[in-house]
Amino acid sequence: MALTDFCMASRRFRLGMVGGGQGAFFGAVHRRAAAMTHRFEFVAGALSSDPTRALESADALYLGRDRSYTDFAAMAAAEAGRDDGIDLVAVVTPNHIHAPASLAFLASGISVMCDKPLTATLPEALEVEQAAKAGTALFGVSYTNAGFDMVREARAVVESGAIGEIRLVRVEFPQEWLASATEAEGNKQAEWRTDPKRSGAGSLGDIGTHAFHLAEFISGLQCVMVSAEVDSFVPGRQVDDNVSVQLRFENGAKGSLWASQVAIGKTNGLRIEIYGDKASLGWGVADANVLHFCPLGGQRIIIDRASHGTVVKGHMPPGHPQGFVEALSQLYADMADQLEARLTGVAAPSKSLLLPGIDAGVRGMRFIDATLRSGSAEGRWITL
Amino acid sequence: MALTDFCMASRRFRLGMVGGGQGAFFGAVHRRAAAMTHRFEFVAGALSSDPTRALESADALYLGRDRSYTDFAAMAAAEAGRDDGIDLVAVVTPNHIHAPASLAFLASGISVMCDKPLTATLPEALEVEQAAKAGTALFGVSYTNAGFDMVREARAVVESGAIGEIRLVRVEFPQEWLASATEAEGNKQAEWRTDPKRSGAGSLGDIGTHAFHLAEFISGLQCVMVSAEVDSFVPGRQVDDNVSVQLRFENGAKGSLWASQVAIGKTNGLRIEIYGDKASLGWGVADANVLHFCPLGGQRIIIDRASHGTVVKGHMPPGHPQGFVEALSQLYADMADQLEARLTGVAAPSKSLLLPGIDAGVRGMRFIDATLRSGSAEGRWITL
Amino acid sequence: MALTDFCMASRRFRLGMVGGGQGAFFGAVHRRAAAMTHRFEFVAGALSSDPTRALESADALYLGRDRSYTDFAAMAAAEAGRDDGIDLVAVVTPNHIHAPASLAFLASGISVMCDKPLTATLPEALEVEQAAKAGTALFGVSYTNAGFDMVREARAVVESGAIGEIRLVRVEFPQEWLASATEAEGNKQAEWRTDPKRSGAGSLGDIGTHAFHLAEFISGLQCVMVSAEVDSFVPGRQVDDNVSVQLRFENGAKGSLWASQVAIGKTNGLRIEIYGDKASLGWGVADANVLHFCPLGGQRIIIDRASHGTVVKGHMPPGHPQGFVEALSQLYADMADQLEARLTGVAAPSKSLLLPGIDAGVRGMRFIDATLRSGSAEGRWITL
Amino acid sequence: MALTDFCMASRRFRLGMVGGGQGAFFGAVHRRAAAMTHRFEFVAGALSSDPTRALESADALYLGRDRSYTDFAAMAAAEAGRDDGIDLVAVVTPNHIHAPASLAFLASGISVMCDKPLTATLPEALEVEQAAKAGTALFGVSYTNAGFDMVREARAVVESGAIGEIRLVRVEFPQEWLASATEAEGNKQAEWRTDPKRSGAGSLGDIGTHAFHLAEFISGLQCVMVSAEVDSFVPGRQVDDNVSVQLRFENGAKGSLWASQVAIGKTNGLRIEIYGDKASLGWGVADANVLHFCPLGGQRIIIDRASHGTVVKGHMPPGHPQGFVEALSQLYADMADQLEARLTGVAAPSKSLLLPGIDAGVRGMRFIDATLRSGSAEGRWITL
Repeated sequence: MALTDFCMASRRFRLGMVGGGQGAFFGAVHRRAAAMTHRFEFVAGALSSDPTRALESADALYLGRDRSYTDFAAMAAAEAGRDDGIDLVAVVTPNHIHAPASLAFLASGISVMCDKPLTATLPEALEVEQAAKAGTALFGVSYTNAGFDMVREARAVVESGAIGEIRLVRVEFPQEWLASATEAEGNKQAEWRTDPKRSGAGSLGDIGTHAFHLAEFISGLQCVMVSAEVDSFVPGRQVDDNVSVQLRFENGAKGSLWASQVAIGKTNGLRIEIYGDKASLGWGVADANVLHFCPLGGQRIIIDRASHGTVVKGHMPPGHPQGFVEALSQLYADMADQLEARLTGVAAPSKSLLLPGIDAGVRGMRFIDATLRSGSAEGRWITL
Repeated sequence: MALTDFCMASRRFRLGMVGGGQGAFFGAVHRRAAAMTHRFEFVAGALSSDPTRALESADALYLGRDRSYTDFAAMAAAEAGRDDGIDLVAVVTPNHIHAPASLAFLASGISVMCDKPLTATLPEALEVEQAAKAGTALFGVSYTNAGFDMVREARAVVESGAIGEIRLVRVEFPQEWLASATEAEGNKQAEWRTDPKRSGAGSLGDIGTHAFHLAEFISGLQCVMVSAEVDSFVPGRQVDDNVSVQLRFENGAKGSLWASQVAIGKTNGLRIEIYGDKASLGWGVADANVLHFCPLGGQRIIIDRASHGTVVKGHMPPGHPQGFVEALSQLYADMADQLEARLTGVAAPSKSLLLPGIDAGVRGMRFIDATLRSGSAEGRWITL
Repeated sequence: MALTDFCMASRRFRLGMVGGGQGAFFGAVHRRAAAMTHRFEFVAGALSSDPTRALESADALYLGRDRSYTDFAAMAAAEAGRDDGIDLVAVVTPNHIHAPASLAFLASGISVMCDKPLTATLPEALEVEQAAKAGTALFGVSYTNAGFDMVREARAVVESGAIGEIRLVRVEFPQEWLASATEAEGNKQAEWRTDPKRSGAGSLGDIGTHAFHLAEFISGLQCVMVSAEVDSFVPGRQVDDNVSVQLRFENGAKGSLWASQVAIGKTNGLRIEIYGDKASLGWGVADANVLHFCPLGGQRIIIDRASHGTVVKGHMPPGHPQGFVEALSQLYADMADQLEARLTGVAAPSKSLLLPGIDAGVRGMRFIDATLRSGSAEGRWITL
Repeated sequence: MALTDFCMASRRFRLGMVGGGQGAFFGAVHRRAAAMTHRFEFVAGALSSDPTRALESADALYLGRDRSYTDFAAMAAAEAGRDDGIDLVAVVTPNHIHAPASLAFLASGISVMCDKPLTATLPEALEVEQAAKAGTALFGVSYTNAGFDMVREARAVVESGAIGEIRLVRVEFPQEWLASATEAEGNKQAEWRTDPKRSGAGSLGDIGTHAFHLAEFISGLQCVMVSAEVDSFVPGRQVDDNVSVQLRFENGAKGSLWASQVAIGKTNGLRIEIYGDKASLGWGVADANVLHFCPLGGQRIIIDRASHGTVVKGHMPPGHPQGFVEALSQLYADMADQLEARLTGVAAPSKSLLLPGIDAGVRGMRFIDATLRSGSAEGRWITL
């Protein structure tokens, strides 16, 4: 039970946010996640494009009136000019704002933690990529699942060679919340997610990218081609709500990815299984604190988070469950480590480099693009 | 707890067997399954093509010397000529013998319970189909999973309309036992199953047909097209050991099927999930005594075999697990019901018609054929 | 996958039955279990004390009219006098008939497979014990759970020393079927089980004895003292429907046993956990095909039936579930092995000695007796 | 998906801490939990009784030098005298410090969040109770599990009458971490927990009190008597490491409680089941995001956190797991609500009253005391 404590280390940074005002969902999760690292102070925001809502939200969150903005461009400019300006901005808007907001802050030299998918379209993503790689600001993408201890343990198991040469990567992310026309019933989250102008894609962007990132993150392999069935089952829906994709990986491994928002009975069923020639492993968010492992010719093993022999050192003893906010807080802790490294010139701890960055963001957009194209072409194999 | 008792009913029939001698696996399961119905006496067999083994096996199983044959053709002729000849023969040989043996007994007017896949090739299957439909002998195919109470319950739930219009059918059957070159290590079961001359196909025939039958049996839908990835991961293997198939159904539903014999950690992981627009259901052989059900906007429900409100009446109270042999015995009980109905002219109980017959056998072969063709053509969609 | 085949061996024996006619539950399970061993022919019965029902039941089960009796005493006498008389009788009546029926057959030199609890009262049990030990007839008690492969595997794990010195034995058997006054609603099974004259005890006899036997069978330890709470929650019920017992074992280990028939949501929740100073193990009937094992300082392991390294060799490959009837058939196979050994003078296979015998039957009655006495004395510790 | 957002509300309070310096475990969890509510600023601490460690810890946590103390008495006095003094102190020391520290802050009018068990001895607990009830400072006890959404949902289900009259309350809390003599191997957490002078009791105080609180919290019933087996299995250990307790409740319900720190394979297995005459429910920390519910004559239902029809409104959509830190943060949010209510004179939201208070703390100490006395008297029933 050697526990690490990311509360006791290093210096603190100033955090701003674009989006995440009243009525939003994920902004509050980001604020809680950042707060629990003890390494970020939340000091500025363009919390809503509606001025009244923006101000009310800012007040409720104790922002100074001078740090509440209604416009991300103004915020980027103003914060860049302050001595006590923000070090990092969280971009937690609908997808179509990701690119312009990210570009504005990158141009001001302010580091960005952007929600996934990176952007609404692939061209936008490439533009952000260019900006991110040109400057010195850091760029993170909040693929939250990459923050779970046992996802990182899974990656470490693969890296160790324990499962051998990978043959199969199977990942699925079924949800039920759009099984009927929720977007027509006043659900704000559903509205923008099913509006192609704001989201870019449906289940594919909202959760398919999570699944795709997890597959590449744990396996360490790049997917090179996809063949897809892309469907929209709910009458009148303008985006995909179910995608089933065959995957081919660089080493010859095969795979499959299923993302669905019409899977009644599944609240949030992200799950992955990887089969090698020496062993297999499995992980799912519904039982996020364990990793399933089975060697060839052996028995099935359930590895508890932080238990005997695990390489990822968590913040609590085994059996004390790590939740979703805690997973996201890991990404903020990684970002703080990287911010500090840049400041001090001392190399960041290697584990902080597990924070998904701009490359992972662009990979997700290439996956969306290729899948949609394959789906429109009777499942023709498309190269990413 | 209103239990049915298939031990108390009807008359008994005489059973013979082709294959299933010493060293075989599934023949003994068939014998046990038939015995526990109390409606079949095992009296004759061509248990092995090796005369010594055939005779030793017959002795060990209390067959009369005059009822032990080394040749299925001789057996069919002799049994057809006896007053106390067999009513039913179980064909439990390697796949390439299924067709000639079935044809011999059908030609003699003897009913057949044939192991799956129906044959080694589609043309053989069509020949058996013609013979079966031409005569009055009955024909069953031992898709064992169709005998589990909760599989039949699942089918009844779909038929009741409770899940609404089906959108998705997802089925998988992973196994681990061929994850390395088991066939090179003297495993007799592995040898013939990986020999294309004797098996016709690998994982596709051995377990893919089980998965495919289950999908059509529970959903009540016919699959009309497939697009497939067909792989052989173990070096030197001459048949497929992993197949991943996209499915399209007659009503516009989509689906996927995965069969693998290289999935380390999975002993026998058959599992199906069906999603409609009103509810979903799920079942798997590893937890065969429960059915998962979830209505739209409701909670997940675990339905125990034989519990409150189930429509399938089992032979034991809820919580007393039904095993694999018991599932197969249900198919023999169904066959006995049908044999008796033919004899008496009284209609067989409708539930006995759930016994998979020649049509289900041929469907399986069409699935194998289409999948292999798609796999050879970069996943082109092939119509069954 | 080295499978044994208890179908191919040895000679067959003749089986009779007392009880188990139309409307009974467990008699049919016994007949199926015996039949699937291929080593018993069911030829005689006193299936009901109601003459009409007895005859109808016998006809439906193909018994000869001369082998159908309405009286177990007459049956014992007649069968003992026939050259083709039965070798074994299954006693599957309400508990109060166990002793007189067993005594009649033992007196006639006919071996007995008696359902549990051994008798309705401890004095009866001691009388049967004396008779069983005086003669040469064999005596088995159908503690069915002792027939599950993974229960035997668990016992073997303990015997191997892998869990070290046992510290704790925790066993529970909750059921829901008597959570309301089922006995007042015409349920025949409930009626006699809640009638103290016919059952002797309630949940304690019906399922508590199963739990107690499992604890001693797997642990290899004898329980020496009990302290109990004995309750009857359903108004008007004349027997216990919930017992919670503290256990002390001969080696200083402690334990607990819970049996309940008012546990809504539990169909048949027998489960045991044993903790040693080196490892722990767990097994439950709801997931009967796996054994949970965890070494000190290690990870949790799920051992599949018949998988790599298991010592109990089953009749099917791993992943093909073993059901309740198959578990009971194991006890009949054991009995057949012992009958054959007695006949041939060759020692029975050691595994056949796992069949629970008269000692296990008497232990169960001592447990009932001591628990009821402690329950009446504010939980005073009572020595078995 | 109507989510509440405890980030957007109310005013902030100042938090101090006693204990929780470098090398401690639970202090950091408290700090993260408080931080993620956005309603507490951590500004002062007596983090260690070792002056160097206290100062280093304070620096690492950004406390001002003037707010770092080595002595809780000095801290209470100083903070009470400041305009910007703390509103709340978290007491997260070994148990024997709980009473003197709590008393010091209560005497200064500063509210307290005290870790469980309330104190090391019952007399100390009564002294703290008297002080807490005499003043206006608030008092919370961090029974963390009471902060899980599904624990509160369970309590609401009981309150609704859905399970009817409670018959049985069964709770267990097995852990493995003291299965060998960990305290002799330099584990600081193990050292003080197995030192009777610092802990008061072993597994009983450390986790038994959690289990006991959960039983009373969800059932709404008070336990009136206990009969216990209290054991210490590890040679040389000076406190109990395994307790098995029979419980009697005020309404006649019966129960059992098992707490163990020698249960190999159980990292943190708190689990409770409650059986009424209309339904049952179950919850466990290993699967903290679901509640099991089963009505009489119905099917087993798995209720997901925040899903359709649940009464507890969480902070995230269903399927996004709530972790241990989030559960504790709920208690801090409750405390903030109560602090604000006291300040404003507006009644606190009723849900904030679920925060366990001084009464729950004292109940836990009465339970420890009665259990130890019963354990020393051969399980004699002791009234709490």
